[in-house]
Amino acid sequence: MITRTEATFAPPIPEAKRWLDGVEFAPDRPLINLSQAAPVDPPPPALRAAMAEALEDPETHLYGPVLGLAALRAALAADWARHYGGTVTPAHVGITAGCNQAFAATLAALTTEGDEVILPLPWYFNHKMWLDMSGLRAVPLPTGPDLIPDPHAARALITPRTRAIALVTPNNPAGVEYPAETLRGFFDLARETGIQLVVDETYRDFDSRPAAPHDLLGTPGWEGTLIQLYSFSKAYRLTGHRVGAIIANPDLLLEIEKFQDTVAICAPTLGQRAALWGLEHLTQWKAEQRAEILDRRAAMQEFFPPLAARGWRLRGLGAYFAYLEHPFAEGASTLAPALVREAGVLVLPATMFVPPGDPTGERHFRVAFANADRDSLRVFCERLAAFDRPLASPGSPA
Amino acid sequence: MITRTEATFAPPIPEAKRWLDGVEFAPDRPLINLSQAAPVDPPPPALRAAMAEALEDPETHLYGPVLGLAALRAALAADWARHYGGTVTPAHVGITAGCNQAFAATLAALTTEGDEVILPLPWYFNHKMWLDMSGLRAVPLPTGPDLIPDPHAARALITPRTRAIALVTPNNPAGVEYPAETLRGFFDLARETGIQLVVDETYRDFDSRPAAPHDLLGTPGWEGTLIQLYSFSKAYRLTGHRVGAIIANPDLLLEIEKFQDTVAICAPTLGQRAALWGLEHLTQWKAEQRAEILDRRAAMQEFFPPLAARGWRLRGLGAYFAYLEHPFAEGASTLAPALVREAGVLVLPATMFVPPGDPTGERHFRVAFANADRDSLRVFCERLAAFDRPLASPGSPA
Ligand SMILES: Cc1ncc(COP(=O)(O)O)c(C=O)c1O
Ligand SMILES: Cc1ncc(COP(=O)(O)O)c(C=O)c1O
Repeated sequence: MITRTEATFAPPIPEAKRWLDGVEFAPDRPLINLSQAAPVDPPPPALRAAMAEALEDPETHLYGPVLGLAALRAALAADWARHYGGTVTPAHVGITAGCNQAFAATLAALTTEGDEVILPLPWYFNHKMWLDMSGLRAVPLPTGPDLIPDPHAARALITPRTRAIALVTPNNPAGVEYPAETLRGFFDLARETGIQLVVDETYRDFDSRPAAPHDLLGTPGWEGTLIQLYSFSKAYRLTGHRVGAIIANPDLLLEIEKFQDTVAICAPTLGQRAALWGLEHLTQWKAEQRAEILDRRAAMQEFFPPLAARGWRLRGLGAYFAYLEHPFAEGASTLAPALVREAGVLVLPATMFVPPGDPTGERHFRVAFANADRDSLRVFCERLAAFDRPLASPGSPA
Repeated sequence: MITRTEATFAPPIPEAKRWLDGVEFAPDRPLINLSQAAPVDPPPPALRAAMAEALEDPETHLYGPVLGLAALRAALAADWARHYGGTVTPAHVGITAGCNQAFAATLAALTTEGDEVILPLPWYFNHKMWLDMSGLRAVPLPTGPDLIPDPHAARALITPRTRAIALVTPNNPAGVEYPAETLRGFFDLARETGIQLVVDETYRDFDSRPAAPHDLLGTPGWEGTLIQLYSFSKAYRLTGHRVGAIIANPDLLLEIEKFQDTVAICAPTLGQRAALWGLEHLTQWKAEQRAEILDRRAAMQEFFPPLAARGWRLRGLGAYFAYLEHPFAEGASTLAPALVREAGVLVLPATMFVPPGDPTGERHFRVAFANADRDSLRVFCERLAAFDRPLASPGSPA
């Protein structure tokens, strides 16, 4: 008999960090770490000042309501309604200790042992890990060269045990932004088949499309089908403060409240106050962050030609991520630690984002480009271009 | 088919808070809320200052290691070894976002669908809720009038599916401190039968016994059997900052790391730094807090005689809690909302801490006395003594 945690794999990020053990980097050639999607700079001074001030309010140190501070729920509902159109009330919003927890809580409210959930490939590893630990079957939905999942292909995977389809857009790890029609197609499919559509929009704030990326919230009764997940981690640089959210049916949130009460009691109060302050004051600042990340994305494209000349391919680019296909005979899982030692770069092999044995895993790397500035991205691309290995023969699996 | 969250009940604290809706309290007769175990005052100024300073360190805003900051793991290991004797290294310590999460993560690493876990009655509701949501069978272990569970009685409940026994000492909700022999008896039973003994020591810092409450860590190979859970919430007044810990086998912590990565990524970094600062600087302050809570406990005893004269019984008293048996014919679950309206006190009926239908639930209340000062406790006891209802007939179930 295996336990719930034994049913899944070790967390990839700590595993990748262990590749650094014992490796020395010359001071003039420091490691470029593009493994984890996390802003490296602290939140802006005004937000830090607001947080310091909040520490003087006794309430900041107390347990708060299980589903989050009322003011934050209201502010996010207003923000969400403004950006996406449609009706979102405070009762549609639940606050969690990060978006990973939002996913776990949502799935606990939707499923039980032996149920099935459809995940497009490549998948976000923590989604797969949560399904494993929950006794759920993750049903992989392969994608083609554009890395965009197809609702028609998903339809064929639905069984009586299917409870949900979970999408991530803009996508981690593939970097692609799902078109509005794709989301509409999945929404219609879910509604027709009586399952739920879970959309993780952690990277919403860095979408290259200025307007709403979909109009699903304009559909009357969207709450019967759609659940959106959000993170305050990236946009406001609050990764260490653990705040995320669920936008869903108020009845479902009452179910989710049970999970939250038991696993979290509440999201950290200071993080919630910081998120609220951010929503109220950082709209302009966030727009500048987005512009900066879109510029880094452009930089990746600018610096890519020498890599393309050596046989690399840029398969996906957006949100925080580039999804790179490498030209080598060797697989990504052994190349990744070699890249640390020989090229001074840390990126994740796509084996961490696909089922064991899926051949696309060994052909790709995920690059969290948004963590690095233009200069570092230039050096990163130079280092990759200088990395030398026997090439794959032309006919090998992509 | 019911989902994981549908397999359990609504969180009791929010439910109890709803009894306050629409009730008005005269300014000279405010509500006395003894429902939730949570310090009402903020952390001491020096700790708040340390937290504000930590906000100026960029690392405070970043994701940290999944199992916690190395310095905090080391400091808690040293603290634990000092207090309990025995060997506890940093590798034995994992940091979680609160002690509720510590329990959830531990059970995920020990069990799977259909397994059994023994919980003494009355139980801590979040433990029961997590077992329900995890597809585990909670096997109740009744206790006698002293509310201390008996290892011999537990032995008879062990089946091939039993994976663990989970104890809470000092106890929530019953307030009792388990004797060292009781813990030794459970440890021996667990070791002999190859199951795990999980001991939630959230209220460790308020134990009335000055020395270590058990010597289990002195047993060579304790890691094969014992898992201790801890919370920084109460002792350092950090409830809103979400920090707890697991003291266990390093191999088990590697399993727990999978759960933590997926459900939390990491405990909030600022909370962890606050906990570390507390361990390093607040030993004396914590001793004063303990003395204050022991004095409140003494106050409960002092103010109790008029209640005893009216037929109330003090069944358990310690940690944060008093466990009161009431003398009325009516049950605690309907008396509790009446106490809000008529006596201006909020306490929890013991129905929240026992299985449905267990007659002890309707006979008792849990009182989180540690939240109130002497004056409030005096008024609380006066209000209870003035609360009038038909008495139970002498032979009715206790
Ligand atoms: C797709 C996706 N979902 C959720 C998360 C979790 O973010 P957090 O828990 O910090 O909100 C991440 C973080 O990298 C992510 O990439
Ligand atoms: C027995 C017990 N365990 C765990 C907890 C959870 O504490 P926290 O998650 O704040 O550390 C509590 C809080 O009341 C408790 O009483």
